[in-house]
Amino acid sequence: MNGLAKGLAVIQAFNDEARALTLAEAAARTGLTRAAARRILMTLEDLGFAARHGERHFVLTPKVLSLGYAYLTSMPLWTFAEPVLESLVEELGETCSIAVLDGTELVYVLRIPVHRILTQGVTIGSRLPLHCHSAGRILLSGLTTVQLEAYFQRATLRSYTPRTLTDPARLRRAVTEAGRKGYAWVQGEMEESISGLSVPIFQPDGHVLAALNVSLNRKNASEAAAVRNLLPKLRRAAERLHASLAVRGSPRRVVRMGQVQRPAGRGA
Amino acid sequence: MNGLAKGLAVIQAFNDEARALTLAEAAARTGLTRAAARRILMTLEDLGFAARHGERHFVLTPKVLSLGYAYLTSMPLWTFAEPVLESLVEELGETCSIAVLDGTELVYVLRIPVHRILTQGVTIGSRLPLHCHSAGRILLSGLTTVQLEAYFQRATLRSYTPRTLTDPARLRRAVTEAGRKGYAWVQGEMEESISGLSVPIFQPDGHVLAALNVSLNRKNASEAAAVRNLLPKLRRAAERLHASLAVRGSPRRVVRMGQVQRPAGRGA
Repeated sequence: MNGLAKGLAVIQAFNDEARALTLAEAAARTGLTRAAARRILMTLEDLGFAARHGERHFVLTPKVLSLGYAYLTSMPLWTFAEPVLESLVEELGETCSIAVLDGTELVYVLRIPVHRILTQGVTIGSRLPLHCHSAGRILLSGLTTVQLEAYFQRATLRSYTPRTLTDPARLRRAVTEAGRKGYAWVQGEMEESISGLSVPIFQPDGHVLAALNVSLNRKNASEAAAVRNLLPKLRRAAERLHASLAVRGSPRRVVRMGQVQRPAGRGA
Repeated sequence: MNGLAKGLAVIQAFNDEARALTLAEAAARTGLTRAAARRILMTLEDLGFAARHGERHFVLTPKVLSLGYAYLTSMPLWTFAEPVLESLVEELGETCSIAVLDGTELVYVLRIPVHRILTQGVTIGSRLPLHCHSAGRILLSGLTTVQLEAYFQRATLRSYTPRTLTDPARLRRAVTEAGRKGYAWVQGEMEESISGLSVPIFQPDGHVLAALNVSLNRKNASEAAAVRNLLPKLRRAAERLHASLAVRGSPRRVVRMGQVQRPAGRGA
């Protein structure tokens, strides 16, 4: 690992269970030597990304957010999509999000919560497994056959509730069905009481850029009611985002399996 | 600059005007040589933080968000504060945010928008100058005299509208007043039609951890009406967050001038 790789690993070593790390802890969590961890944390401190906390601990500073912000502002859809998502939330009265695919997970790039969704700590940058989330099914439906094979080879289809689809054949059918119907409905597969409805946001070239999602936190949610009451509005919002993409000429990116597809066209 | 510093600089080189960079562009924006920029971008690509876009360009991937997310989850207040902020938004029907201080700017760590706030691209990780924002005045009011001096030495008090306070003596008085009253009201100093009301979120040791803010996007906003209708609810929410901090024993951090104060007590 070079210095950059080590530094990024150290930043990612911090989380809810590790809010302040000693040199030894940072080393243990990253597999670095104590000396290397020290060098990295001193550099991060010099650059303002980390700071001392007490005698022996380091913490991250809010400057770290500027790194994630670099991604968000470099994808202008995520900023100009906000008013569209706001209108949708106002219309539906439910929590709405936009998620993209990264490796075997989805990442929220925009999320506006309403009511109390019980899941704590779901915010921009949160990562969730693809297989048991309606946005995940939509993102999987946008993959080519080869990409989908790669997903099934790499993914762990963990069971979160008795309803979680963990059988690859059944998951494949669910993904195909989501692609055919143009929406995915997933109920209680990640948490018993949470359901979700998602539709694709298409790029001008027809690839799936992201999934637009509405989350319902109630026991008696039904696919029929969601399709009747929520789907038309979700589709209109996705269509508006698609139209904006065409106008604004956002980079025609296809995020897939941790990388980005080469578009045929322009290079910026 | 070592490899880590260079890498973080390259990540930060991407933004709305630079969504896809060639090696030459990345080099020009960071002051690196073309060879160094190439090495950094190849490493970022290997690690999944950047990807090729067309023949000659690189873009950031959503994995970059995991870096900002490391900060957000390492400060649990920002995740468990979400339901409190949601209730507040429901009560007030206005856009609410939580901001912390970083250098001479404030950084949003949580934000729930309602209606259409015209300012585009304000999201988690957004940075704004302290001097013309009500949350900024509150964060400045939490500084010691020495820290406030350092702020005035480093900050550029840029004028955004005819109402922007740019005179240091008047800004000092406004900060003192915000500290004394326990709230800050700022009207039209960053954008003509936007007003804001902010209160401090105190840490258990009495330091100001963050500012809780409500933004109003209307011409006829008045301080009297905001103080009457919004301030009591804003204060109750800040009090709940303060109480949660005491219970959860979040690291007693004071973010100031780009670093973190050493607390007297425990080391997390």
